[in-house]
Amino acid sequence: METQAHNKKQLEDVLVLQTHALNIDDEEEHPPKQEETPPQLFEVEAILKYEFKNKQLLEEAFTHNTYDTENNLSYERLEYIGDAVLNMLITQEHYFLYPNLSPGALTRLRSANVDTEKLARVAIKHELHRYLRHKKPLLEEQINEFTKAISEYPLHSYGLIIAPKTLADIVESAIGAVFIDSDKSFEIVCKVFKRLLEPMIDPNTIEKHPIAELQEYCQKNKVDFKFIDLWEESKSVEVFVNDKFVARGSHGSKKKAQSRAAKSALDLI
Amino acid sequence: METQAHNKKQLEDVLVLQTHALNIDDEEEHPPKQEETPPQLFEVEAILKYEFKNKQLLEEAFTHNTYDTENNLSYERLEYIGDAVLNMLITQEHYFLYPNLSPGALTRLRSANVDTEKLARVAIKHELHRYLRHKKPLLEEQINEFTKAISEYPLHSYGLIIAPKTLADIVESAIGAVFIDSDKSFEIVCKVFKRLLEPMIDPNTIEKHPIAELQEYCQKNKVDFKFIDLWEESKSVEVFVNDKFVARGSHGSKKKAQSRAAKSALDLI
Repeated sequence: METQAHNKKQLEDVLVLQTHALNIDDEEEHPPKQEETPPQLFEVEAILKYEFKNKQLLEEAFTHNTYDTENNLSYERLEYIGDAVLNMLITQEHYFLYPNLSPGALTRLRSANVDTEKLARVAIKHELHRYLRHKKPLLEEQINEFTKAISEYPLHSYGLIIAPKTLADIVESAIGAVFIDSDKSFEIVCKVFKRLLEPMIDPNTIEKHPIAELQEYCQKNKVDFKFIDLWEESKSVEVFVNDKFVARGSHGSKKKAQSRAAKSALDLI
Repeated sequence: METQAHNKKQLEDVLVLQTHALNIDDEEEHPPKQEETPPQLFEVEAILKYEFKNKQLLEEAFTHNTYDTENNLSYERLEYIGDAVLNMLITQEHYFLYPNLSPGALTRLRSANVDTEKLARVAIKHELHRYLRHKKPLLEEQINEFTKAISEYPLHSYGLIIAPKTLADIVESAIGAVFIDSDKSFEIVCKVFKRLLEPMIDPNTIEKHPIAELQEYCQKNKVDFKFIDLWEESKSVEVFVNDKFVARGSHGSKKKAQSRAAKSALDLI
């Protein structure tokens, strides 16, 4: 706890210094993303409110394997262990928080809180993606598209939008880096990332997947529905309820086109 | 550590008592599975070398949901958390043990050590399945078939034999039970289950999946291979190398028939 308090004090100093530096450049307040100086990795420590003992872990966590092929630096191993740590922490939290939830419901709830889309949202929200060193030419555009798309779905789209995996990766690699740096402390990882993972999806806010929901609706109301696959012709899928056309969904991925069609159908029936 | 030593002493006492009890009934030595008295759950503590503070957890861990439908007792939630704990422990161990292994290789290695077949083998080896309370009429036969099948593959068949999921489930639920009972101690879970999970599969003993291996072999030796699907006709799959028939595999599952065909082809070419 003393070390934590000490770290907190140091981080506050960093933040004060940063604010001070901003004020020298420019008296107006503005978010750091409009700064012209490139993002510095030490700023991640202020975002996480965690100071690394081993700064190389921080560097590794924010380096994509395209960035420095000579030295083979890559976040992938940290992402690998971070994924297991996050999975463990959420599993444990839900287990005790929801003693009456079935394993099936627990699995769906965990998935909504740790899947690619959820973690990609975390990266965007806390601007972690700004610190990723990479040479992936298409990534910026994918991030822009994703950022635009999530505004339509405040919590989760449940498969309707495609999240760039790299965004989720850096959240997991950051978790892995804090885990290793803190000498495998689940407690510290939990303290650091609980805030960043907010808002957590709980049994009240979780939504069903549109296809599952459509199935359930039709079963309950004793109507038939079917998907008509127009993939070859038009990259789209249509939903027919009791043999009548109801909705169409289009997307670069067939699965997502189907989800969109189901979602539109649910909005209409 | 003191508690552990104390627990160990208590367990030794239990074992001595059991041995003593056996000697009263019958002077000859024989393994407990030939006993006519039904297996008692407390014997699991001797197998695990762990004494539960909360015996209800032990009971829950060894109860299938078919056994006591009135009270809704089932190992499923313990299995759910045990799965995450095991995944975490193996991930962590491999991360530090193999600093040069890629995430892909780490994933394959972890999978071989925690998948259904591996855990089902653990259940059989330590006779944990004898203590499962269930009303699954076909389980005994599945267990017998599995026990026979694994004798052909000392470490792992990598998909060639089907393991009853229930067997793997009870290893995970036992892990979950010890985790909860030990107040979430990864250290204690690790101590209890490391021995039971032996022999661990390592980078030297892991085998590739036969299909991946056949692909690699053919690529390296610049020969073509293809599978001929005879599923509809004969529940089998054939392998042709450079358009010549090499091997056939049959199985109730098409994927496994394909694996078997690949394995036979590898043995022959």
